[in-house]
Amino acid sequence: MNHLAKPSFSHYLPFLSWLKDYRRQDLSDDVFAGIITAILLVPQGIAYSILAGLPPQLGLYASILPPIFYALFGTSRTLSVGPVSIAAIMIASALTAPAVSALGYPVQSALILSLESGVIMLLMAVLRMGGLVNFISHPVLTGFTSGAALLIIGSQLPQTLGLKTPDCGIDVACYTDYIQGFNSVTLLLSLSALALLLLFSQLLPTILKKMGVKLTIITAISKCGPLLTVVLATIAVSFLTNMGHSVAVVGVVPSGFPELSIDAITDSLSQRGKLLLPYAAFIALIAYVESVAIAKVTANLRSEKITPNQELIGLGAANIAAALSGGMPVAGGFSRTMVNFSAGARTQMAMLIAATLLAIAVMYCSPWFTNIPKAALAVIILVAITPLVKIKTILHTWAYDRGDGIAEVVTLLGVLALGIEEGIALGIILTIASHLRKTSQPHIAIVGRVPDTEHYRNIKRHHVQTWNHLLLIRIDESLTFANISYIEEFLSTELKRRPNTHHIVLIFTSVSDIDTTALEALESLNQALQAVGKTLNIAETKGPVLDKLQKTDFLRQLTGQVFFRTEDAVKQLG
Amino acid sequence: MNHLAKPSFSHYLPFLSWLKDYRRQDLSDDVFAGIITAILLVPQGIAYSILAGLPPQLGLYASILPPIFYALFGTSRTLSVGPVSIAAIMIASALTAPAVSALGYPVQSALILSLESGVIMLLMAVLRMGGLVNFISHPVLTGFTSGAALLIIGSQLPQTLGLKTPDCGIDVACYTDYIQGFNSVTLLLSLSALALLLLFSQLLPTILKKMGVKLTIITAISKCGPLLTVVLATIAVSFLTNMGHSVAVVGVVPSGFPELSIDAITDSLSQRGKLLLPYAAFIALIAYVESVAIAKVTANLRSEKITPNQELIGLGAANIAAALSGGMPVAGGFSRTMVNFSAGARTQMAMLIAATLLAIAVMYCSPWFTNIPKAALAVIILVAITPLVKIKTILHTWAYDRGDGIAEVVTLLGVLALGIEEGIALGIILTIASHLRKTSQPHIAIVGRVPDTEHYRNIKRHHVQTWNHLLLIRIDESLTFANISYIEEFLSTELKRRPNTHHIVLIFTSVSDIDTTALEALESLNQALQAVGKTLNIAETKGPVLDKLQKTDFLRQLTGQVFFRTEDAVKQLG
Repeated sequence: MNHLAKPSFSHYLPFLSWLKDYRRQDLSDDVFAGIITAILLVPQGIAYSILAGLPPQLGLYASILPPIFYALFGTSRTLSVGPVSIAAIMIASALTAPAVSALGYPVQSALILSLESGVIMLLMAVLRMGGLVNFISHPVLTGFTSGAALLIIGSQLPQTLGLKTPDCGIDVACYTDYIQGFNSVTLLLSLSALALLLLFSQLLPTILKKMGVKLTIITAISKCGPLLTVVLATIAVSFLTNMGHSVAVVGVVPSGFPELSIDAITDSLSQRGKLLLPYAAFIALIAYVESVAIAKVTANLRSEKITPNQELIGLGAANIAAALSGGMPVAGGFSRTMVNFSAGARTQMAMLIAATLLAIAVMYCSPWFTNIPKAALAVIILVAITPLVKIKTILHTWAYDRGDGIAEVVTLLGVLALGIEEGIALGIILTIASHLRKTSQPHIAIVGRVPDTEHYRNIKRHHVQTWNHLLLIRIDESLTFANISYIEEFLSTELKRRPNTHHIVLIFTSVSDIDTTALEALESLNQALQAVGKTLNIAETKGPVLDKLQKTDFLRQLTGQVFFRTEDAVKQLG
Repeated sequence: MNHLAKPSFSHYLPFLSWLKDYRRQDLSDDVFAGIITAILLVPQGIAYSILAGLPPQLGLYASILPPIFYALFGTSRTLSVGPVSIAAIMIASALTAPAVSALGYPVQSALILSLESGVIMLLMAVLRMGGLVNFISHPVLTGFTSGAALLIIGSQLPQTLGLKTPDCGIDVACYTDYIQGFNSVTLLLSLSALALLLLFSQLLPTILKKMGVKLTIITAISKCGPLLTVVLATIAVSFLTNMGHSVAVVGVVPSGFPELSIDAITDSLSQRGKLLLPYAAFIALIAYVESVAIAKVTANLRSEKITPNQELIGLGAANIAAALSGGMPVAGGFSRTMVNFSAGARTQMAMLIAATLLAIAVMYCSPWFTNIPKAALAVIILVAITPLVKIKTILHTWAYDRGDGIAEVVTLLGVLALGIEEGIALGIILTIASHLRKTSQPHIAIVGRVPDTEHYRNIKRHHVQTWNHLLLIRIDESLTFANISYIEEFLSTELKRRPNTHHIVLIFTSVSDIDTTALEALESLNQALQAVGKTLNIAETKGPVLDKLQKTDFLRQLTGQVFFRTEDAVKQLG
């Protein structure tokens, strides 16, 4: 908590802290996890790139340099940074916005989104704004993720049927016609891919567990499902093509790397930069919030620590690296991190190994990617994304806290009905407004003494002793401009209901601050009570509050007294 | 506080409550106050209308029908509603905005501002948004008022010298030339007017008081200063004109009333309505906030009650009445209300009488207004407005609460540097942001037992008993998404500093709610503690919080226990 302590060198380069204790066993764990993660990252990188409406290689490029930069600057030891589904749909939303799509060259726009998100994250780090994202509450985040996942599902389902995205609006008849145009060969391919994926992710682990196979081996085998699906589906496509069937495929993926694309970015920055900035800001915000949430989950499981501000630096550097190496915007992904973690990764060395393998794949294996059927990738996305639609969580939230439940549902519906950015903005505004409303209605209790003790409790919830001419009121929050009107209203109502009251004692156990507006209100309350011959007293006032009040005339003009304990007030006035 | 109670008829027509007990003595008090107020309102109406950049009659019209409507629907018995200085400068700001002034016909625009402000207030009443204005804190309001008053002073000073508004920017030499163009006759007139006003408002009351004259008589005499100044100045102008001097005067004021101007408004509404809406919203906001603040001051002095939501109805009706009767937007004014109150007004009957006198003046006295010198009106405005620049209050706030002091100064400078609307918007945003920041850093205390008692106090401020393996932590606010990260951070730092801790007891004396985000954080804290063999306990939990937690798995999974009192936890774990 000491903000003045000079941060050490390893504060800004967190990898130094794990590197100095790095053991041989760690390396063997990390190599294994790196290989498993790389196997997942090839199909995922291609799939999310296509989901974003971009050529497949942008997802592969984004899986190489960005995780290396995150490994240098990020604080999580197991977070896997690269293309993720939610960011992909946000990129798609930006690229299809009329003004942006009118400019053409979506690849240029995607690189600028990467660059701008990265710069925004670094700026947030400099301004120490990491804490501001706390104003995206979990319910808003869950609502947003569920809504975005539903949008992704909606965009991928047609692919599994060999259909284009429908353009029917609310015309039901149009949808009937549309559905009937499905490609039966593609559907068969999709169903086979689905069966294979479920076999590997659900059935096989259960069987292997019963056979007593080691857990890491089970994990390794089950995580090969997506790659195997892609390989088998690609082979199937060549047969199907020979048989005269047509199935949509990924198409040519260039071999090797693009040149570092600084020129390409700066050339079009002035033209696209301003237009894309709001989209980049939302991508940065969500990428950061989701990454930290995922990083915290794995860090908690191993009692490691995440430093939010340093995460902004790590993710910012990763996104700038994505821009410079021709990749789409990146974040920490849930499924890729979980694969990495459960395959036994100890440190970011695992991701360095995975990135190296990806680089090799890009250099030598691109020709193999050409015939990957889009339907198989769509099925992989659907299987990965469906768990993000958290109906159960939403129901739980609804039951536990109605306000949070409403925020969750409104954000979800906002994303579906208004759009990605509008939905999350609506959720954030709603949360802040409801937070303001709540803090403006503090809990106030009229208290009495628990018989034969010195404890004072709410008269509504406990059998307590009270006094006819003495009103003990406990205000459970700091007194500020935001809540003082509510408190005034409460006091005036209670005084009207209890005309015999002579002494009012405000119990300040929970009052940590009294701002100028509240002080003025207390002063006029004191005057108003003086006018009708009643007294205002305060009790249990905290030190800093008393210090602050002593700077004013309030205590001198107080009609009553300042009591250390409520008990003292009762002894003297009761 | 019972929101379900059916409001009575007199709830919506508050004048019924004073009318039923109205006595002869009240009437004689109200007649006297009404006459005194009317004497002030004639020069003020003309002056504020000119300040707003409008023909003089718009301020007079606004002093007739609007106070009558407020008398019917408003809850304050002494608030005087009509043209006010702060609203006038806001109207001037709207009318001189390039897009608005390009449309010409400022009178049309002013009427639309009245209509829109009125409708916005009624809408706020319907949506019960009266409480939202509490988010304009007193410091922001003081900063805004002081800044606006300084702008008014800046606009009126040239008038007292017979000069037009300077157009020099930051060119100092230009100002030197500009000042030298002053009209010495006008300056002499202004100084005489100032002397006369100060004589009536400061010197005369002191002398009369020493002579033992009755207070109401003193008030009546002192309040005649502005009218007498205007009369004498007007007479002086006719002499000066005959002597060949030229002094700027009000000009022709039409006799009688305009036709109810519904057509005039609806004809140009579509064209101007959207453009003026943001200005109208700010005028409505400030008119409402300032009116309620003033109404509360006088109501407190007589133990009467203001109902904020009903005030919105009263002020909304008054502004719509202003629009329909050809008047500028209105609000409750400080000086006019204080005159009314100190002249002894008992009820809104005083304002009904003042409005009647104004109507007579408009019908029969308009020709007399033509030769009123603008310089005399400027001096009247300057004398009325200078006390609104509250340097002393700003210094007090600065000393008491630095955050409030900064908000005050930034709002003031914002009004001066950026403009009226921008300044108040900046102030409001700043307040909300700082409120969010504050509520996200709740007060947390590690507590120990005051020896030989059952009281637990902050270990930093009291000599208390503590236990090596027991950590008692009191969180002084509800647990929400906004502050839970800060709390997690605090706990993790403290646990690192006290590695021997076995049991953590969270004391929830001040916790009135735990939202979904905070609950999830508590759950993972509980799991993390379980992993290292420590326990999480809670104590002093309030009923509603416990009820809510019982709906979840949290209490079943809790590694420690739920204690009624901190004392119980210490007895068992200490």
